[in-house]
Amino acid sequence: MVGTASLPLEQRVRQTRLATQGLVQTTPAQRAAALTAMATALEQSQALILEANQRDLAAAEAMVARGELTAAAYARLKLDAKKLAGMIAGVRDVVRLPDLVGSDQWVRLLDDGLVLRRRWCPLGVLGVIFESRPDAVTQIVSLALKTANGVLLKGGAEAIHSCTALVAVIHQALHSVGWDPQLVQLLTTREEIRELLGLEGWIDLIIPRGSNAFVRYVQENTRIPVLGHADGICHLFIDASADAEMAVKLTVDSKVQYPAACNAIETLLVHQDCAQRILPLVAAALREQGVQLRGCERSRAIVPMDAATEADWDTEYLDLILSIKIVDSLAAAIEHINTHGSRHTEAIVTEDRAAAERFCQEVDAAGVYHNASTRFADGFRYGFGAEVGISTQKLPPRGPVGIEGLVTYKYLLSGEGHIVADYAAGRPFKHQDL
Amino acid sequence: MVGTASLPLEQRVRQTRLATQGLVQTTPAQRAAALTAMATALEQSQALILEANQRDLAAAEAMVARGELTAAAYARLKLDAKKLAGMIAGVRDVVRLPDLVGSDQWVRLLDDGLVLRRRWCPLGVLGVIFESRPDAVTQIVSLALKTANGVLLKGGAEAIHSCTALVAVIHQALHSVGWDPQLVQLLTTREEIRELLGLEGWIDLIIPRGSNAFVRYVQENTRIPVLGHADGICHLFIDASADAEMAVKLTVDSKVQYPAACNAIETLLVHQDCAQRILPLVAAALREQGVQLRGCERSRAIVPMDAATEADWDTEYLDLILSIKIVDSLAAAIEHINTHGSRHTEAIVTEDRAAAERFCQEVDAAGVYHNASTRFADGFRYGFGAEVGISTQKLPPRGPVGIEGLVTYKYLLSGEGHIVADYAAGRPFKHQDL
Repeated sequence: MVGTASLPLEQRVRQTRLATQGLVQTTPAQRAAALTAMATALEQSQALILEANQRDLAAAEAMVARGELTAAAYARLKLDAKKLAGMIAGVRDVVRLPDLVGSDQWVRLLDDGLVLRRRWCPLGVLGVIFESRPDAVTQIVSLALKTANGVLLKGGAEAIHSCTALVAVIHQALHSVGWDPQLVQLLTTREEIRELLGLEGWIDLIIPRGSNAFVRYVQENTRIPVLGHADGICHLFIDASADAEMAVKLTVDSKVQYPAACNAIETLLVHQDCAQRILPLVAAALREQGVQLRGCERSRAIVPMDAATEADWDTEYLDLILSIKIVDSLAAAIEHINTHGSRHTEAIVTEDRAAAERFCQEVDAAGVYHNASTRFADGFRYGFGAEVGISTQKLPPRGPVGIEGLVTYKYLLSGEGHIVADYAAGRPFKHQDL
Repeated sequence: MVGTASLPLEQRVRQTRLATQGLVQTTPAQRAAALTAMATALEQSQALILEANQRDLAAAEAMVARGELTAAAYARLKLDAKKLAGMIAGVRDVVRLPDLVGSDQWVRLLDDGLVLRRRWCPLGVLGVIFESRPDAVTQIVSLALKTANGVLLKGGAEAIHSCTALVAVIHQALHSVGWDPQLVQLLTTREEIRELLGLEGWIDLIIPRGSNAFVRYVQENTRIPVLGHADGICHLFIDASADAEMAVKLTVDSKVQYPAACNAIETLLVHQDCAQRILPLVAAALREQGVQLRGCERSRAIVPMDAATEADWDTEYLDLILSIKIVDSLAAAIEHINTHGSRHTEAIVTEDRAAAERFCQEVDAAGVYHNASTRFADGFRYGFGAEVGISTQKLPPRGPVGIEGLVTYKYLLSGEGHIVADYAAGRPFKHQDL
């Protein structure tokens, strides 16, 4: 890429788009070979990559000392032999995923000699904007190439040396299999984010990886489709008939197992008819795990805790804090969730099958769970083999999105000179699925 | 709806959204019964509907006389017994379409007792904005109710009496089967369009039906997903090896069969190696049908015709006008299409299978056709039983969109107290499709 980094962004995107034209015609085996070459090249360049990461870390240490970077961000930035091995294993995992591009979703005979196919095809060019994690580079690039997409990457400034080294190794691997290295381009300046977001028609999908505020900024500043979600305000509702032990177990897992995750719960709703029976047990278990509780008045009458304010029902803590509210009924729980939830993942604990069914039908969220932890909302746990993102929009793809989120389809119609005038004159279609 | 029409729009949308909550739980048989009741009510109210339409027509005649309405718009506005019977038959056709809502796309065992389902569900509330056609009301409402969606309708001012009468009959039918009439609301003022477009989070999908300029206005003035397309700049490419007779037949059908349709061609591309052989035949056949031709210089050297300007390659005539360009190669044809096309439907005429395959892979459009008329791009012809719209965006749904475009899915996970901590500690998933 040396020599092209200084070109205007639109021109660079054109290069990438042009490079993808040949990519559509590669076979699954060729794409697998390219990814394997990438894994091998990363293995052979470990020292170089870790050295580049050291340079980023040196600068980042100073930033942490000055309070400009959090310790968590520093941890995400840091690579070591083990993390790098994990990244390389991740690339090899992508090789083993099913390959969609070029295969048909369905084939339909419209009439003799007139065959319609709905075929999976790549989106084109992806724009990926992430913060400090260098491991995002190998993950996104391997998923993009698997699906025959080109990709423009923009990482955080603090990861610049790491990302540059990783992309150089990837370019070398692409070159070794005869692929155009311009399929993968790294953007390095902050101004390029805004420019990238304006390239409607050139970039087919934006994938933002970062804080809620960052994702919201991206969503609000582009007309390109965005795969992602800003908030994860998830609830667990303990219904009247809930099993107490299960309720405790699910609440603790949904809150504590990884509180910074988007699928961790922020608010616990408890049916008034079981609050006396279950809330003290749940509260004790949560406190044992260091969770700070904030309750509505009725909750506080059963278990002393801090008072929740109205703002708590709309807050994603991403931390060991949980708001608790006692509700009058299943309907009130559904109403609360549909008002305050972010349509991500919502769960009910109940022994009442009809209540579970109503909850799952009426709650408007990508995931509706019965007697299971909200933490299961994840592409790997769903068996997708990868997770490109989690979408809280209503239209598909929704929820955890695997490799399917990086492809689209086109209709291929093949005929023998068929014209519509014949059918307008009364010739019937066969519409027979093959 | 009497009495609610004066409420602020957001409040009316809330009513519709609330009304849809019960709808999710209806069975396919109940939805079929509601649609059948709607068809019956329309049959019984024919006189009333035609009378209302007469009032619109009387006002419209004056507008036509003053040059404020085109004769074509007047024709679209006009209902008669035959057209109304067709509308009612259309409602009964929707009853017979497969019912998706509530059925599972797939079911996967994540582990013993932990089952994940991806289930079709309604989008929620649709916003439909159309121009003068009253038949849009019955078509959209029947598709919306089939898929358990609520719908807000805004028709053109010139169709106000017809739409009001149709919606009143629909309300009566909904009432007769015990459904909330507020599932279907008619908006009547022009200001409500802008307001509607701003109701992100309340309206799940906007379907605009009207001119290109109108669709573009809608797309550019809302953050709600829009199902539709502004332009239909489609091409037919006559490749070097094309059969002359087939080329003539396909060109005429693609241009002439219904020139105002979005899937009619606007530009004909001809390979230089067959231009002498085929272009004169094609030009003669087109002229016989009254098509006005505009050619590039090389075309004009073979067949005298008006000169095309650069602007012609980007113009959707929607009329009996065709621009013609001779290209050097298949690659040049693909390049022209990917530059000037609107990603709608693109066709190649060729006896060379490899050329057809390359064309279909490299052309970026919702439909890529080999030896078939572009006019086949249509939900009914594809066998969808209905067409909600044609989308030229890259992400699904793409191309002609049937009833599938009015639904989404959610993930239902049902467990027996399963927690993620166990799997984080090493318990494997089964990921077994059921």
